[in-house]
Amino acid sequence: MDWSMVDQLVQKWLVEARGRILTSLQQRLTIESKSNANDLVTNIDRETEQFFIEKVKDHFPNHRLLGEEGFGDDVQTLEGIVWIVDPIDGTMNFVHQQRNFAISIGIYEEGVGKLGYIYDVMNDELYHAENGKGAFYNGEQLPILQPVELKEAIVGLNTTWVVPNKRVNHERLIPIVKQARGTRSYGSAALEMAYIAVDTLDAYITMRLSPWDFAAGMVILKELGGICTNLEGKPLSLTDSSPVVVARPGLHDELMNIINR
Amino acid sequence: MDWSMVDQLVQKWLVEARGRILTSLQQRLTIESKSNANDLVTNIDRETEQFFIEKVKDHFPNHRLLGEEGFGDDVQTLEGIVWIVDPIDGTMNFVHQQRNFAISIGIYEEGVGKLGYIYDVMNDELYHAENGKGAFYNGEQLPILQPVELKEAIVGLNTTWVVPNKRVNHERLIPIVKQARGTRSYGSAALEMAYIAVDTLDAYITMRLSPWDFAAGMVILKELGGICTNLEGKPLSLTDSSPVVVARPGLHDELMNIINR
Repeated sequence: MDWSMVDQLVQKWLVEARGRILTSLQQRLTIESKSNANDLVTNIDRETEQFFIEKVKDHFPNHRLLGEEGFGDDVQTLEGIVWIVDPIDGTMNFVHQQRNFAISIGIYEEGVGKLGYIYDVMNDELYHAENGKGAFYNGEQLPILQPVELKEAIVGLNTTWVVPNKRVNHERLIPIVKQARGTRSYGSAALEMAYIAVDTLDAYITMRLSPWDFAAGMVILKELGGICTNLEGKPLSLTDSSPVVVARPGLHDELMNIINR
Repeated sequence: MDWSMVDQLVQKWLVEARGRILTSLQQRLTIESKSNANDLVTNIDRETEQFFIEKVKDHFPNHRLLGEEGFGDDVQTLEGIVWIVDPIDGTMNFVHQQRNFAISIGIYEEGVGKLGYIYDVMNDELYHAENGKGAFYNGEQLPILQPVELKEAIVGLNTTWVVPNKRVNHERLIPIVKQARGTRSYGSAALEMAYIAVDTLDAYITMRLSPWDFAAGMVILKELGGICTNLEGKPLSLTDSSPVVVARPGLHDELMNIINR
């Protein structure tokens, strides 16, 4: 596989997909009331997934595509080449804010991440990586992530997980709030992983993500030495939902020690 | 006072201040290590405040200026015309992320908000208002805020306030997390108030802000029907620190009922 050629294609498709999303948003938000925003954006979500499915099927008929909206293939294993696509990551932001959402694409060959893309559509900011060649922000190569201590770190963590909830004993996470320099929450898992790549965040913790939420981020952060695991510190599965702890080196150990104390 | 003339001056100064901040950030981040970022940005913070003090003293020698960095006047009352300035709101973001911070300026005459500016420096996004003339995003007039229910709302709320802390019984805020559509946290009070003006957030709750954090946001949100109070629903004082609950109409009542149940 000529991955540089694939990279060039994907970057071209991302720009095209962005143009379609911007046009659709503008057209529909002017003709429909805001209260229908939910339906409008659901349609854009689907159309964007269909767009990538058509492109992939046209150019790479033997690749498979796992997409959030479910129009892709029924992917049970990671044999061959699999595209893992979230056409709009951060759906609530998309519906409510019309910003702070991303197109997320991870491309895996026999389970190994080859290419990863997180594209902040409204800000026109592209985070991407090619296996073994490094990670990039708007085309500029990013430096390897240096270790940081929790007391100097900003952690992506939503209020949901530090109050009583169905997915985790919130008491396990409260010490992180107390010891971190600060916490933030942006509402897009893909963007929050991308933010670790550029030092906007040092870690990101959430209790339930699907493979399309983290497939691209894993490829990007691997190039920079970032660590992505579940709550027990085990590798994430690309065929299952999972809690996710993503962090710089060093900080990931510190977070694991707190969560599993 | 010719407030339209003042408005034109402030907008010109904001652009000039932005240029200085961008230049300083670029120069210093290239010559110094990231670990010294704290000192660097503290200096930029101070220089930006001094910049506005000089401009105001030159053009309006009888106006007073209350600034976060403390180089302005010792403002104990709101007699006459008072500029309330936070040169860099969101200092931790500025230090750590070099984005998601804002210049915040509120101008009050005998305690009445006349002009308000929140300028997202890195994104070049200006939220501003003139008393009685409306509020604007990048020069485009914003519509009046419509009521929204908490279950449809996105609330700006940091994890700090929903775990045990020194400023509030966190149990009072937990129902908000459970009932809201979602919560976010961006780390700049001024920006989080500006986000309410453009529907990125519907409410913002925090337990300790100073007048320079909310002086501009109050002017902007008043033009749109947004409501800014302390935890007891009383007006905010521009000479004291305070907890702050800012929200769309309707939603503010719902939040008050939960917090003071």
